Amino acid sequence: MDIKQKIEQANEEAFRRLCAGDPVLVDVAPAGEVLPGLKGKWITHSGPPIEWKRMCGAQKGALIGQTIYEGWAKTPDEATILLEKGEIHLEPNHAHQAVGPMAGTISPSAPVWVIENRAFGNRAFCRQVEGNQQFGDYSDEALKGLRLWRDVWGPTLQKALHTIGGLELKPIITRALQMGDELHNRAIAASSLFANEMAMAMAKTELAKEDLLSTLGYVTHHDLIFLGLSMASGKAIADPARDIEYSTVVTAMCRNGTEFGLNVSALGNEWFTAPAPKVDGLYLPGYTADVAGLDMGDSAITETVGWGAFTIGGAPGILSLVGGTPEEALAYSREMRKITVSTHPTYRLPALGFAGTAIGIDIRKVVQTGIVPIIDTAIAHKDPGYPKIGAGLVRAPLECFKKALIAFSRKYDIGK
Amino acid sequence: MDIKQKIEQANEEAFRRLCAGDPVLVDVAPAGEVLPGLKGKWITHSGPPIEWKRMCGAQKGALIGQTIYEGWAKTPDEATILLEKGEIHLEPNHAHQAVGPMAGTISPSAPVWVIENRAFGNRAFCRQVEGNQQFGDYSDEALKGLRLWRDVWGPTLQKALHTIGGLELKPIITRALQMGDELHNRAIAASSLFANEMAMAMAKTELAKEDLLSTLGYVTHHDLIFLGLSMASGKAIADPARDIEYSTVVTAMCRNGTEFGLNVSALGNEWFTAPAPKVDGLYLPGYTADVAGLDMGDSAITETVGWGAFTIGGAPGILSLVGGTPEEALAYSREMRKITVSTHPTYRLPALGFAGTAIGIDIRKVVQTGIVPIIDTAIAHKDPGYPKIGAGLVRAPLECFKKALIAFSRKYDIGK
Repeated sequence: MDIKQKIEQANEEAFRRLCAGDPVLVDVAPAGEVLPGLKGKWITHSGPPIEWKRMCGAQKGALIGQTIYEGWAKTPDEATILLEKGEIHLEPNHAHQAVGPMAGTISPSAPVWVIENRAFGNRAFCRQVEGNQQFGDYSDEALKGLRLWRDVWGPTLQKALHTIGGLELKPIITRALQMGDELHNRAIAASSLFANEMAMAMAKTELAKEDLLSTLGYVTHHDLIFLGLSMASGKAIADPARDIEYSTVVTAMCRNGTEFGLNVSALGNEWFTAPAPKVDGLYLPGYTADVAGLDMGDSAITETVGWGAFTIGGAPGILSLVGGTPEEALAYSREMRKITVSTHPTYRLPALGFAGTAIGIDIRKVVQTGIVPIIDTAIAHKDPGYPKIGAGLVRAPLECFKKALIAFSRKYDIGK
Repeated sequence: MDIKQKIEQANEEAFRRLCAGDPVLVDVAPAGEVLPGLKGKWITHSGPPIEWKRMCGAQKGALIGQTIYEGWAKTPDEATILLEKGEIHLEPNHAHQAVGPMAGTISPSAPVWVIENRAFGNRAFCRQVEGNQQFGDYSDEALKGLRLWRDVWGPTLQKALHTIGGLELKPIITRALQMGDELHNRAIAASSLFANEMAMAMAKTELAKEDLLSTLGYVTHHDLIFLGLSMASGKAIADPARDIEYSTVVTAMCRNGTEFGLNVSALGNEWFTAPAPKVDGLYLPGYTADVAGLDMGDSAITETVGWGAFTIGGAPGILSLVGGTPEEALAYSREMRKITVSTHPTYRLPALGFAGTAIGIDIRKVVQTGIVPIIDTAIAHKDPGYPKIGAGLVRAPLECFKKALIAFSRKYDIGK
C-alpha cells in the first residue's frame, strides 16, 4: 500500500469515527469534580496554549471575571495581579477534554455540561454559554449569571438529568439541523427542543418550587443554551478521531483571540497556529469594527464536526446576525464539501435537498484547493470589560493548514 | 373614483386588516360553551356546507367517531343511523367562527383552542389536531386521544392558560417561520416554542402531578400541536377582512373532501365551490393514490393568511413529507406573490432574503394569471375508518375563483 492509500484509508477511519459519534448528556457537574488532571487554583481557556501576557483583552477580562467569581480576588486589580504573577494556573480547555465559547474560561466551581460519546466511551465538557463574562465583561452584573448557574440552574439541571438517567442528543441535533439551526451561533431550535426535554425531566424530579421556576425560566428562554451542548458534543465526537496514523483529518480548530490553532489526527496534540483573523461581521448598536477583537473561542469545534458555518446554507435565519444572502450561505455549505472526506449520513440539510453535512476536514484538500474552513462566530471587544459586541463570518488561516501539512510530510517522510 | 380604484382601495384595507391581526390564545374550552349559536346534538365539520349523503368517506367516518365519542351512539352502525336520519345537526365550522383540520369535526364536549384577535376583538376556534379520528378513523383507539384531550389535556392547559392570562402567538409565529415551519403540515418549531411557554405556565399552576406529567408529555412531544393554533389564528386574522365593499380578497379557503369552497370579502359568506381536487402526494406504507380521498379540511385557512404552501420555500424540511425539491419550494413561494395584494411586514422568510410572506389573495389576479393558490395538506382514505394515509401538495380549483369573480362583477355591475 502506498502512502496515498494509507492516508485515504486512515481518513476513511477518521470519517467513520466522526460519523459514529453518539453524544449523550450525562451530567452537569462542577468542573473541579470532573475535568481530569487539575488541582488548586486553575482556570482553563479557549484556543491553543497561551500565556497571560500575550492574551487578548477579552480573554484577560474573562480571566479577571472568573478569578473574582471564584472568590480568589475581590477587585479587577487584585485579580490582575494574581494572574500576572502566575498564581493561577492557566491551561487550554482542549488539554482537558473541554471546550468553552469565546474566552472559554472554566474554573473549579463552575458547573460544566458533561457529554459522553456512547460509541467510544469518552467524555467531553463545555462551560455555560452566556453573553457577558465569556466576552470579557467582569462587572458584578456579568458575574451574576455565573453565580446563578453555579448555585441554582446547574444543580437543578443535574438533579433532573439524574432522574432521567441522561439525555441522547443525536435526535435533537438531527432535528435542529432541519429546523434552521447551524448549532454554533444559531441554536434556537435545539435549545427549544432541549428545554422541552428538561421541562419533562424537571417535572419528574422533586424540586423546590423556586428552583424549578428559576431554572425552567432560564432553560426555556435561552436561545443559545444548546451551544454549550453542541460544543461539548463536537468535542466528544472529534476526540475519538485523534491519533490515527496517516490521517490528515482535522480533530480540532480553536482560537484564543491572539492565535488560531488546529490539531490533525496523525499529529496528535501538536498545535499548528497562525495569527487569529479578523471577523467580517455585523455589530451591535454602539460598536464598530474598530473596537473588535480578533477571532476567539473553542466554538469552531462545531465546524470541525460539520456544523456551524459548514451548515449555514440550511440556517438562513442566522444571516440577520452575520450578514450575507441565502444564496451565499448555500454556496458556503456546498464549498465545504470540497475540503472534507465526505458528508454525514444522518445530519442532513433540507435546503440542500437533504444532503448530509460536510464532515472530516482534510488538510491536504485545504492546501490543494486553497479553500479554508468557514466559521461563523460572535465578536468580542479588543479591550477587557465588555459584553458581546457583534457576530460574523471568518475564514480559518491557510497558514495553519500549510504548517500542519509540512509537519505531516516530515513525520511520514513524504516528498523527499 | 372608478371601480378599479375602489377595488384597489378596498383590497388595501383588507390587506391592512390581515397584517394587523394579533392572535392571542386566551382559552381552551368545551366547544358547547364557546361556539356561538349551537344547541342540542350538533357536530360541525370542515369545508363548505354539505349534507351527510354527499359527504366523502373520511368525513363520514369522522362524524361516526365524533358521535360515538359524545356518547350519542355505542356502535358505528348506531351512529350511522342517527346521522342518516338527520338527528344530529350538521353545520360547517366556518359558520361558527371555527375551523378544523381534515374532516374537522367539532362537538359540544370537545375542548377547542380559543383565539382572540386583539387588534379587532373577534374570536376564532379550532379543534384538537391528531392523526386518527379527524381522518375518519372511529376505532376505540382513535377516540382515546379525544377523550384524554377532553378529560385531562384540555382542562390542564386551560388552567395553565388562566394562570398566565393568555399567550401571545405573534412572537411564536414570527420565529417559527424563521425556523423552517410553514405552520400547516410542518409546525415543529412553533409546537416546540409553544410547549416551552406552556411548560412554564404549568409549572406556575397548582396541578395534580399525574395531570401535569400527562399533559406536559403530550404538549412537548406533539409536533403538530401548533397546527390547531395556527388554524385558529388564521381564522381570527381572516375574519376581520370580511365584508369590505369592493374587496376581491379571499377570506376563507376550505374543503370538505367533496367540494373546495372559498369566500371573498365583498361577497360576505357566499360560498364559491368546485369539486375537491386530488392531492399530489407521498403515501404512508401500505397506502397508494388509488385509495386516497380528495382534498379535505379547513386547514387552507393557513394559506389564506399567507402560511402553509405560500411559505413552503422557507420550510424545505416538509419536502420529505410532500415531495419536491427546495428550488421548487422557493418557486412556489415566489409565485404566490403574483396573486396576493402584497407581502407581510412582520412574517418573513430568511430563505427568501427575509422577504415577507405573500398575503391577501386577490381573485382578479388569480383569474388573470391562471395561477391558483398552492396548498400543502394531509391525505385521508376515501373510505371511512382509516387514520392518516399521506401528505402532499394541491392547487385550489380555478373554477371557484372564476365563479366568485362573476358574482363580484354582477354585484357591482361590472363589464356590462
